[in-house]
Amino acid sequence: MASTAGKVIKCRAAVAWEAGKPLVIEEVEVAPPQAMEVRIKILFTSLCHTDVYFWEAKGQKPVFPRIFGHEAGGIVESVGEGVTELAPGDHVLPVFTGECKDCAHCKSEESNMCTLLRINTDRGVMIGDGQSRFSIHGKPIYHFVGTSTFSEYTVVHVGCLAKINPNAPLDKVCVLSCGISTGLGATLNVAKPAKGSSVAIFGLGAVGLAAAEGARIAGASRIIGVDVNPRRFLEAKKFGVNEFVNPKDYQKPVQEVLAEMTDGGVDRSIECTGNIDAMISAFECVHDGWGVAVLVGVPHKDAVFKTHPMNVLNERTLKGTFFGNYKPRSDIPAVVEKYMSKELELEKFITHEIPFSEINKAFEYMLKGDSLRCIIRMQE
Amino acid sequence: MASTAGKVIKCRAAVAWEAGKPLVIEEVEVAPPQAMEVRIKILFTSLCHTDVYFWEAKGQKPVFPRIFGHEAGGIVESVGEGVTELAPGDHVLPVFTGECKDCAHCKSEESNMCTLLRINTDRGVMIGDGQSRFSIHGKPIYHFVGTSTFSEYTVVHVGCLAKINPNAPLDKVCVLSCGISTGLGATLNVAKPAKGSSVAIFGLGAVGLAAAEGARIAGASRIIGVDVNPRRFLEAKKFGVNEFVNPKDYQKPVQEVLAEMTDGGVDRSIECTGNIDAMISAFECVHDGWGVAVLVGVPHKDAVFKTHPMNVLNERTLKGTFFGNYKPRSDIPAVVEKYMSKELELEKFITHEIPFSEINKAFEYMLKGDSLRCIIRMQE
Ligand SMILES: NC(=O)c1ccc[n+]([C@@H]2O[C@H](COP(=O)([O-])OP(=O)(O)OC[C@H]3O[C@@H](n4cnc5c(N)ncnc54)[C@H](O)[C@@H]3O)[C@@H](O)[C@H]2O)c1
Ligand SMILES: NC(=O)c1ccc[n+]([C@@H]2O[C@H](COP(=O)([O-])OP(=O)(O)OC[C@H]3O[C@@H](n4cnc5c(N)ncnc54)[C@H](O)[C@@H]3O)[C@@H](O)[C@H]2O)c1
Ligand SMILES: [Zn+2]
Ligand SMILES: [Zn+2]
Repeated sequence: MASTAGKVIKCRAAVAWEAGKPLVIEEVEVAPPQAMEVRIKILFTSLCHTDVYFWEAKGQKPVFPRIFGHEAGGIVESVGEGVTELAPGDHVLPVFTGECKDCAHCKSEESNMCTLLRINTDRGVMIGDGQSRFSIHGKPIYHFVGTSTFSEYTVVHVGCLAKINPNAPLDKVCVLSCGISTGLGATLNVAKPAKGSSVAIFGLGAVGLAAAEGARIAGASRIIGVDVNPRRFLEAKKFGVNEFVNPKDYQKPVQEVLAEMTDGGVDRSIECTGNIDAMISAFECVHDGWGVAVLVGVPHKDAVFKTHPMNVLNERTLKGTFFGNYKPRSDIPAVVEKYMSKELELEKFITHEIPFSEINKAFEYMLKGDSLRCIIRMQE
Repeated sequence: MASTAGKVIKCRAAVAWEAGKPLVIEEVEVAPPQAMEVRIKILFTSLCHTDVYFWEAKGQKPVFPRIFGHEAGGIVESVGEGVTELAPGDHVLPVFTGECKDCAHCKSEESNMCTLLRINTDRGVMIGDGQSRFSIHGKPIYHFVGTSTFSEYTVVHVGCLAKINPNAPLDKVCVLSCGISTGLGATLNVAKPAKGSSVAIFGLGAVGLAAAEGARIAGASRIIGVDVNPRRFLEAKKFGVNEFVNPKDYQKPVQEVLAEMTDGGVDRSIECTGNIDAMISAFECVHDGWGVAVLVGVPHKDAVFKTHPMNVLNERTLKGTFFGNYKPRSDIPAVVEKYMSKELELEKFITHEIPFSEINKAFEYMLKGDSLRCIIRMQE
């Protein structure tokens, strides 16, 4: 047990006081973990689009002051009552969606949408007692998706922590705690392209490139990247993307362009944009008879998916996925091993690295579309 | 070889001279089969909704005069050049969608949408030479979906004929040539409910009841029938449907009613109505995480399928199917065997039987919603 166990820890955290305003590094108090909770020391965290989206808080319920961050790697400092699977010193990845191992979803082979610990972006407190574990001078600072990794210490429900190989470098595998696993799993667990097949990837951000990495691992022979930002194409070549389509270069809908390129449609498509038109195109561009489209992007709350029902009747399949259908506790340790065995490359996703004190730079890189993943080192 | 081989056959056929007008029994001339074609003697045929739909020809390109009919059982009379798989005397079921065994779809394990012989409701001629094999006083009478079984003899492409067990009673297994296989396959081949699961069936016509029969065979424990016509409920009990919902009995959308009945949604749903609202409800009523919805009904040409993309993202699957994903030549013989081994009951689908001369009665029964399947005996 660390000497800090059972006590409040004072440490640095990047607090978002208001929507869209730069984060401020503050000294916060982190309460000890309660029943079924774990306090972890974060060593590395990275920035994902979802942090930016809820920090901007456009059209959502704003929950401030708040500590963002959900892609990270850390070490268990202490555990609360009832936690038996983890002990101080264990290496863990926190995940925004959990696995209670007890609900209908956790017991289903197909779902990872745990009833108890499913992502909840509106809740800023722990599910056990409805309280925050963070405070400044006694005033609560809210949590984000149960992880809040932009802090030197954070408290997470045991169901949202994947225990991983302690030899895995946390400054690399931390990116598996959200976006990269999401894209990879969308391809490997949901789209499941056969060897030699054609795969279209809509959106070549980190999630889409991870989906491309999945297609490469699965042995797809044509990996067609679709993005409205042509700057993405150069980078995408490193991820096995071997053809490119910019929808803006054509008069006709991009699904028709893809159908012409592939004699009727691609075998699989994976949408990683969050844009509703891209979602519809991704569905309509798959081949009739056997095509499967997978939606990954988080849509605008007023978006409507529209298609002619004959596109469905013609034996196309439409699916969606959270976190690439991985169950965080059961499946993520094996994804880390894929990196350890060099089957999966993570280095190419990491375009920037900065110390914690410069965290606002990570937001700038992402907003400018310059970065895939920017690693934030907690220790200066 | 029959003595008629190579010659024109004069026989009776029910000709639709105009959209929506009663059929007229006429003497027609049936030309010999050309390359890759087979001439068959129809013994029994039945009426399916699709015949009625194209006979009414509302909003479609009218193709008249035409011989309708595509659910039937018959015996090969003679074969054209290049036909090696069938010989005179073989028992066959004609199918509206074919299997060339050579195209990408036929070679795919997942698709039955043969490029060459896929259903085409606008074409009234044979694909070999673009001619009709039917005529009256030298004037062509058009074919329907390559089958035209409302005739004592008809000519069909070899790829649209399933060769079946000669001991199977054609007056029963003829219904497997369209609607019943479609519903059965939608459940068994596409929705694939697990033992003990819940299945909602939208539309309790012959197709929907065959889907229910599939759910019964698969061991589903809850089979919930959804229909706006409460008269269908009594009949549906014979098909293992053990709960009923009439959307008209509720203020709220039927998908919400079903979600409440099933703690979040059904495991599988199969839509067999052709109604776009039912298609959307069928999708939205499946459980997040693992639910699969299958569309079977043929939609109106202007229909639009609309849903919030979060319904997809929450790990629901949407699929569509033609002919229950059965490949007609490869798979239908085994479905006939399911009937022969008493695993599948067909008698309960057959509500009426009439001689060929009274064929217009079959249209009346269907239009009034009185019949499931009406068998038409060609021999009086
Ligand atoms: N389902 C999940 O579990 C899950 C998890 C993480 C992220 N996400 C979502 O995945 C999406 C991608 O995340 P990211 O971090 O890679 O984002 P990103 O912003 O880095 O990349 C998105 C890419 O999509 C492109 N794009 C936008 N509109 C397009 C269009 N109409 N056609 C083609 N390309 C278009 C952009 O140019 C950009 O390159 C986001 O919506 C994110 O919220 C989902
Ligand atoms: N995909 C295929 O290969 C294929 C093959 C054959 C038939 N079909 C189609 O399947 C559908 C069913 O065929 P059928 O012969 O059983 O037709 P049917 O008319 O006998 O049965 C349809 C049933 O749906 C019910 N219904 C209509 N609107 C409804 C709604 N909004 N909610 C609930 N119930 C509703 C009707 O009351 C009726 O009982 C048709 O659209 C037909 O064209 C498709
Ligand atoms: Zn759970
Ligand atoms: Zn074919």
